[in-house]
Amino acid sequence: MSAEDAFASAAILGLGLVGGSLARDLLARGVRVRAYDPAVAARGAATVGAPLAQIDLVAAPEALAGAELVVLAVPVSAAPAMLAVLRPHLGAARLVLDVGSTKRSVVAAAASLGVGERFVGCHPLAGDHRSGWDASRAGLFDGARVYLCATPSTAPDAMTRAAALWRSLGAHPAVVTPDEHDRLVAWTSHLPQGVASALANALALAGIPPAALGPGGRDVTRLAGSSPELWTAIAADNADFLDEAVGAMQAELAGLRAALAAGDRGALERFFGRGRGWFEG
Amino acid sequence: MSAEDAFASAAILGLGLVGGSLARDLLARGVRVRAYDPAVAARGAATVGAPLAQIDLVAAPEALAGAELVVLAVPVSAAPAMLAVLRPHLGAARLVLDVGSTKRSVVAAAASLGVGERFVGCHPLAGDHRSGWDASRAGLFDGARVYLCATPSTAPDAMTRAAALWRSLGAHPAVVTPDEHDRLVAWTSHLPQGVASALANALALAGIPPAALGPGGRDVTRLAGSSPELWTAIAADNADFLDEAVGAMQAELAGLRAALAAGDRGALERFFGRGRGWFEG
Repeated sequence: MSAEDAFASAAILGLGLVGGSLARDLLARGVRVRAYDPAVAARGAATVGAPLAQIDLVAAPEALAGAELVVLAVPVSAAPAMLAVLRPHLGAARLVLDVGSTKRSVVAAAASLGVGERFVGCHPLAGDHRSGWDASRAGLFDGARVYLCATPSTAPDAMTRAAALWRSLGAHPAVVTPDEHDRLVAWTSHLPQGVASALANALALAGIPPAALGPGGRDVTRLAGSSPELWTAIAADNADFLDEAVGAMQAELAGLRAALAAGDRGALERFFGRGRGWFEG
Repeated sequence: MSAEDAFASAAILGLGLVGGSLARDLLARGVRVRAYDPAVAARGAATVGAPLAQIDLVAAPEALAGAELVVLAVPVSAAPAMLAVLRPHLGAARLVLDVGSTKRSVVAAAASLGVGERFVGCHPLAGDHRSGWDASRAGLFDGARVYLCATPSTAPDAMTRAAALWRSLGAHPAVVTPDEHDRLVAWTSHLPQGVASALANALALAGIPPAALGPGGRDVTRLAGSSPELWTAIAADNADFLDEAVGAMQAELAGLRAALAAGDRGALERFFGRGRGWFEG
């Protein structure tokens, strides 16, 4: 990031996996970081690790006024309301970002709240099944793809600054529309999450504990450990695209059952062969 | 393994992931190993690594006669026919094992071929998506669960020898019936494989390449890289139990779609929450 694009101060709402990791990376680059996260604040700095002592934890979102960079890192269901609360206190902000897993709703909210010019919706593909401050770490975004979504009125230099910020953290930004983004992640992220959770649920009902699985089965079910709160918000917000993707998964399973019922080895070999062909690229 | 239970010589049919790893472990324990695997033999010892030079690669299954331990490590669809070919040449064998992923069919074949007394069906839970000699390695079974299935006429000392053999390789044997085994692995292994392949197939049809996935999605789809040949044989052999498990998965996905269509956050939170509850044990 060039000197004129660097931020001296940042305000982060939510110190979970993404917000907490962003706070660590910005602190390491000399940025003054204030943050609002009542749950983390209630635990006390001593219990949640040294880097937190360098963060100015404020008691209300309004106390974040004055920061040059503002980042919303709360569940996607909470972001629009949080942005409305912050709206009167964004005077000094040159750039306002969110880092949620869906982009249509938050980009629309930013536009309707009149902060679209300075707003860039961001989604770093850096998560796994872990969540919360304790899962956050320096370097989380190194090598990660980050999708950037403009509002209808986002200024070109806001997009440039957002891309430079992510590049300075080692990430690879790519600009897409909110629609393109939400359709894509329905397949690449939300469908795998739904599949892992559905498999875990089916195993639970059949009385099969996680310890009965081998290494392969543990891979397929790992995402079932993700936060139900976060994923309820994401799935509800992207219901239309996710429903389409789950429907495609159902069709594949129906094809598998038909091949099993018919004892059709050719169809089974095509079923497993197509998956391997995809895997090998 | 006590001295009187140790085998001086072993014959292994099939040098894939499991057969090859078993060959490496037995060689390391001073057992003379002969093996039959036309594909590996055709590649030549020089191309497939040093341990293979210590293995006596024979040109026909009949040439394995004389070994004290005989192990079938071929796809489950090939094991019964291979056992029939070997049948007249098993005179010296004190123990005959297979290591396939299904147990009903091979145990029934051993019984009907009259070798049930010396036969123990074995299934080490040590695989992942890799296959073949190049994926085999010393220590594969260290810490792994191995299921042991008796035929109706398996001698008690054959079971004892089989368990001692696996323990000597670091594995943890557990005796189950072939029916119990095949039902269990339909859920713990075959369903996760079918789910990973179905997800890969759905992504392929939607035009989503593997590189578009994050770390979580890569976990869920990793098993799609498994051998179509092996999995066609396993799925066909365990079709009844696998069909039941895939049906349960379909019911979970139908529940997810119903919650999405209704915008029912409570139902979504229960869906993701049940999966997390299972994951956390």
